Amino acid sequence: MSSVKITSSFWGRYRDLVRREMIPYQWQVLNDIAGITIEKERDDANIPSEKSHAIENFKVAAGRVQGTHYGWTFQDSDVYKWLEAVAYSLREKMDPELEKNALAVIDLIEAAQEPDGYLDTYFSILGIEYRYQSLAGSHELYCMGHFIEAAVAYYTTTGNEKVLNIAKKCADNIDENFGPEEGKIHGYDGHEEIEIGLLRLYHITGEDRYLNLAKYFLTERGKHPDFFREQARKYKGPNALNWVANAPNTYFQNHAPISEQKTAEGHAVRVVYLCTALADLAATTGDEEIIKICRTLWDNIVDCRMFITGGIGSTVNGEAFTLDYDLPNDTMYCETCAAIGLMFFARQMLRIDPNGEYADVMERALYNCALAGMALDGKHFFYVNPLEVNPLKSKKDPAKSHVKPVRPSWLGCACCPPNLARMIASLDDFVYTINDNTILVNQYMDSDSLLDVGDGVVLIKQTTGFPWDEQAGLYVSNNSGVDVKIGVRIPSWSENFRIRVGGNLVEIDSKKGYHYIEVAPGSSVVIGVNFDMSVTRNYANPHVSEDVGRVAVSRGPLIYCLEGVDNGDDLNCLILPLNAHFEYRFDNNLLNGVGLLTTTGKRVHARSKSSLYTKERPSLKDVKLTFIPYYAWANRGENEMQVWIRE
Amino acid sequence: MSSVKITSSFWGRYRDLVRREMIPYQWQVLNDIAGITIEKERDDANIPSEKSHAIENFKVAAGRVQGTHYGWTFQDSDVYKWLEAVAYSLREKMDPELEKNALAVIDLIEAAQEPDGYLDTYFSILGIEYRYQSLAGSHELYCMGHFIEAAVAYYTTTGNEKVLNIAKKCADNIDENFGPEEGKIHGYDGHEEIEIGLLRLYHITGEDRYLNLAKYFLTERGKHPDFFREQARKYKGPNALNWVANAPNTYFQNHAPISEQKTAEGHAVRVVYLCTALADLAATTGDEEIIKICRTLWDNIVDCRMFITGGIGSTVNGEAFTLDYDLPNDTMYCETCAAIGLMFFARQMLRIDPNGEYADVMERALYNCALAGMALDGKHFFYVNPLEVNPLKSKKDPAKSHVKPVRPSWLGCACCPPNLARMIASLDDFVYTINDNTILVNQYMDSDSLLDVGDGVVLIKQTTGFPWDEQAGLYVSNNSGVDVKIGVRIPSWSENFRIRVGGNLVEIDSKKGYHYIEVAPGSSVVIGVNFDMSVTRNYANPHVSEDVGRVAVSRGPLIYCLEGVDNGDDLNCLILPLNAHFEYRFDNNLLNGVGLLTTTGKRVHARSKSSLYTKERPSLKDVKLTFIPYYAWANRGENEMQVWIRE
Repeated sequence: MSSVKITSSFWGRYRDLVRREMIPYQWQVLNDIAGITIEKERDDANIPSEKSHAIENFKVAAGRVQGTHYGWTFQDSDVYKWLEAVAYSLREKMDPELEKNALAVIDLIEAAQEPDGYLDTYFSILGIEYRYQSLAGSHELYCMGHFIEAAVAYYTTTGNEKVLNIAKKCADNIDENFGPEEGKIHGYDGHEEIEIGLLRLYHITGEDRYLNLAKYFLTERGKHPDFFREQARKYKGPNALNWVANAPNTYFQNHAPISEQKTAEGHAVRVVYLCTALADLAATTGDEEIIKICRTLWDNIVDCRMFITGGIGSTVNGEAFTLDYDLPNDTMYCETCAAIGLMFFARQMLRIDPNGEYADVMERALYNCALAGMALDGKHFFYVNPLEVNPLKSKKDPAKSHVKPVRPSWLGCACCPPNLARMIASLDDFVYTINDNTILVNQYMDSDSLLDVGDGVVLIKQTTGFPWDEQAGLYVSNNSGVDVKIGVRIPSWSENFRIRVGGNLVEIDSKKGYHYIEVAPGSSVVIGVNFDMSVTRNYANPHVSEDVGRVAVSRGPLIYCLEGVDNGDDLNCLILPLNAHFEYRFDNNLLNGVGLLTTTGKRVHARSKSSLYTKERPSLKDVKLTFIPYYAWANRGENEMQVWIRE
Repeated sequence: MSSVKITSSFWGRYRDLVRREMIPYQWQVLNDIAGITIEKERDDANIPSEKSHAIENFKVAAGRVQGTHYGWTFQDSDVYKWLEAVAYSLREKMDPELEKNALAVIDLIEAAQEPDGYLDTYFSILGIEYRYQSLAGSHELYCMGHFIEAAVAYYTTTGNEKVLNIAKKCADNIDENFGPEEGKIHGYDGHEEIEIGLLRLYHITGEDRYLNLAKYFLTERGKHPDFFREQARKYKGPNALNWVANAPNTYFQNHAPISEQKTAEGHAVRVVYLCTALADLAATTGDEEIIKICRTLWDNIVDCRMFITGGIGSTVNGEAFTLDYDLPNDTMYCETCAAIGLMFFARQMLRIDPNGEYADVMERALYNCALAGMALDGKHFFYVNPLEVNPLKSKKDPAKSHVKPVRPSWLGCACCPPNLARMIASLDDFVYTINDNTILVNQYMDSDSLLDVGDGVVLIKQTTGFPWDEQAGLYVSNNSGVDVKIGVRIPSWSENFRIRVGGNLVEIDSKKGYHYIEVAPGSSVVIGVNFDMSVTRNYANPHVSEDVGRVAVSRGPLIYCLEGVDNGDDLNCLILPLNAHFEYRFDNNLLNGVGLLTTTGKRVHARSKSSLYTKERPSLKDVKLTFIPYYAWANRGENEMQVWIRE
């Protein structure tokens, strides 16, 4: 098994936060330990958020305590995402106390599983006879998908057979109930995820029926656009978010068979989970039709529907995509989970096609939208990641009430924080892609790795100060017994990119964003990489109405923003002149250490303050502009923030 | 009685439309004549809009036919607004057929009135015992207020005593049920309007108790912020929109006593109806405290919360004000009725204070937001009047679904079209303000007027090609027997304003926006006015984030806009250069005759079309820009529109 040990101080701090803060905190939340406050992410009386009750639900389902189910239909998934994060955390660093808790949770899950393998506390408690009958909102397969992901991760780290067996039993139950055969349900879950889980289970077990079942779910989708409504009409069981069946079909990507879907439609997280599974299936089977579908959806997202931060989802209404080039900076959704899902999608695409664009987008989503989802303290989290905020408008304009100006401490619908935890804890899985004897270096990150190639290993040691420093060193030692090609990624943001092999500058030969260096068996090589981290002005396609006449400033992979605390209020009055010269300075004492950009800009100010409309053109005065990395915003209290600044 | 006969060809066309199209069309709608299609203004299953049923409700309440109530709690007001428009229309031009219909309606209303004077078909049909118990949403006093307005108008035009007596009986019933005395209800309606009606009734009858009741409603408001919720809790009657009681108190201007309200909050139409009544009360009684309240709310609206079109209401959510300087151009509400209400407010303020600002705002709202509420054919109407529209976003972004790119043919909640009809039909009431011996010329409009001053009349004949031409002639003949001062308004948009008296240029002496000319009794004078209708670039206060770096173009009172049909898509890619020179041309064949502005501008276009983000600054190319008056937009099919253009 390949191993990537991340030694980056930048990421080390986040990974420590996951281990020391997030995983223990989530454990307390899942167990309803007194004193934990759960803040609602929306003022909606229908959101169950007084407590988590997630572990308690399992105890009730297992018959260990009396009680009933509390929380969302997808409450179980909180426990599974925690368990998955624990698996990665233990991979990074063993922790007997944490392992004890994990084993107890696995025992509890086993006890809550039905004899036939079905696993979902909601229906086990509230009416097992109603299972699989309200899939629009029941999240049964979604939850089981998350369990299978957690089980595979935990088994991979620890070799624990019990958890894998629960997962197989669970997948077998699904296989018995769903499929093209007569007597089985010809349907799928309202929220894609089981497809990812089944494919991961296939990769570990080699059992074709898990692959086939994943393929069935993926290709059946959208063939019967009335599936959810027909189920909902007949349904007599407990609530189960059954009303969700009335959502437009696009919400569930159920409006057309996937082969006919040319644009990313509906709930953004659902879309990228669907795409992640599709790309895994395509990479695994080489199915050209599926590959084409993946490329079509990828291109639509990345060329037409993605914010510059890697955020996706243009409206709070259904947390959804809207239309091409509709990227409003202050009312969008840009859910943290959706950015993480886009990273998952990108990782699978790299298995299909060694194209640097996938790694670029992965990096964009990681260092910007996803990372902005958590506070520097690891205890506060955003669901929604705006590119422009005015706290007063968030309070008084109902259309912006979902856009929080600071991160709440925990969220009623707790999907994003555990998703961040499992992503950050498994960041090592995003650094390289191994395709046969080729190793793609996707992410520059200080790390020590042993990568399985041929019958041996390739050792790669990365030394870099990424994302701040302009160079990286890769020591590669090929003990695989075969010729190995190292694909050194040329980031799209790096205008002048230089590579030294053994100290000698080489001529860059970019093949779809990678420069390949061959390393013979038994040999080693030192690769030196120089990035060009000049401050960059980014322009959006002029079809993006909101961004016309504006620039977003970036340095390396980091998108920068202005905050009120540094630049005063009314950020839209600031102008970045065409000839502005930026100074870069790393400040160790600010925001846990960040690279700051400063320059001289202009500020519009009215001569006559009181009147609303005037014939006088407002005048401009020189002001200092201070930009911080977007991921670090909203860590100094409520204030305005803006990514796209007027030029 | 003073009479103002409008002879303007610009307004004549609209007034003909009201008489020939709108009033007859409304009559058909109110009577559910087959073949009339009612389009919903929103996709909301709760909106009753299959038919009007408004006349039928009266027939049921009168016991003339069997049946039940259908429609909104405020369905009666459609009939009253129609009747009020008919009154003004008959004042302009007698029409026996129309009068016959009006008299039949008055008979029907009389028959539907309860013996004790109460008048509301909803409760008369569904449960009279529940009346006055659910005032948050019942609209009982709102409807009666509209009836009283209609009755006063009809009586004033025709001398019909019957309709006035129904109104007095109605007002007396309200007086018996509401007031500070023990045993009466200490409350008010959820939607202000009765206050306006009672004051108009006072002006006609001189009955102090109507004045006092209006004052009671106005000053009681907000003293018991729980009033609506307490009523709602106890209520056992029919629906009556009782749930509206759960709205925030600001929605009803019920969050604080009016003397403590420093900002315009909540539902915009409610606010301006409240203010109209407050200003009428203040003008009538001279109450300094009420005057102060009026000024405070006026200043807040006009200095901080009004769109450049005279539209108000920054959010669809509650059709409401939000906060100072929050004026989003593409998600606002800007209801047609609210702009009309702002005109009402301005007209009352002119009675308090001869300040040109009130007439300026009246003109701004009239020629822009209000007039944009109707199509050139008089058969299609906007509720919502955006300053920027992209039809694709209206279709696909739920946050913009209320923003229609073309006017629907009729509206489920039919408040705006009849409000437009009564406003346009009574436009003569907005031209002059007579304060003792002073006549303010508020609006430039071709017209022949006989104005009551002293014991005689002052004749004023206006000859102008307003709003297109740059001059107006006023022939004033003073047959009043007293010295008269004519206040000639100096529009705020006119940079160089010239007045000739008897052909001789006079030195302008502006007193709060009016230049006064004395006319001795028995004498006459010809006043020539020259406006400066240079094309103007308007800038918003830089606190208005959406408008920073943008200009709105105007000529005279008209705000101009760009439409896609003239300028292509992606209007936000257009730039108006600082040195652009405008050409003005009146086109008789376009949009019923409009003054067009053309100039050379720039269009941003991307060099590399496909990528979403690039380091390449987009280039600019010269393009012709064609501006049309804002009121005339959306008369050539669906297309983009923009008022605030990048400079």
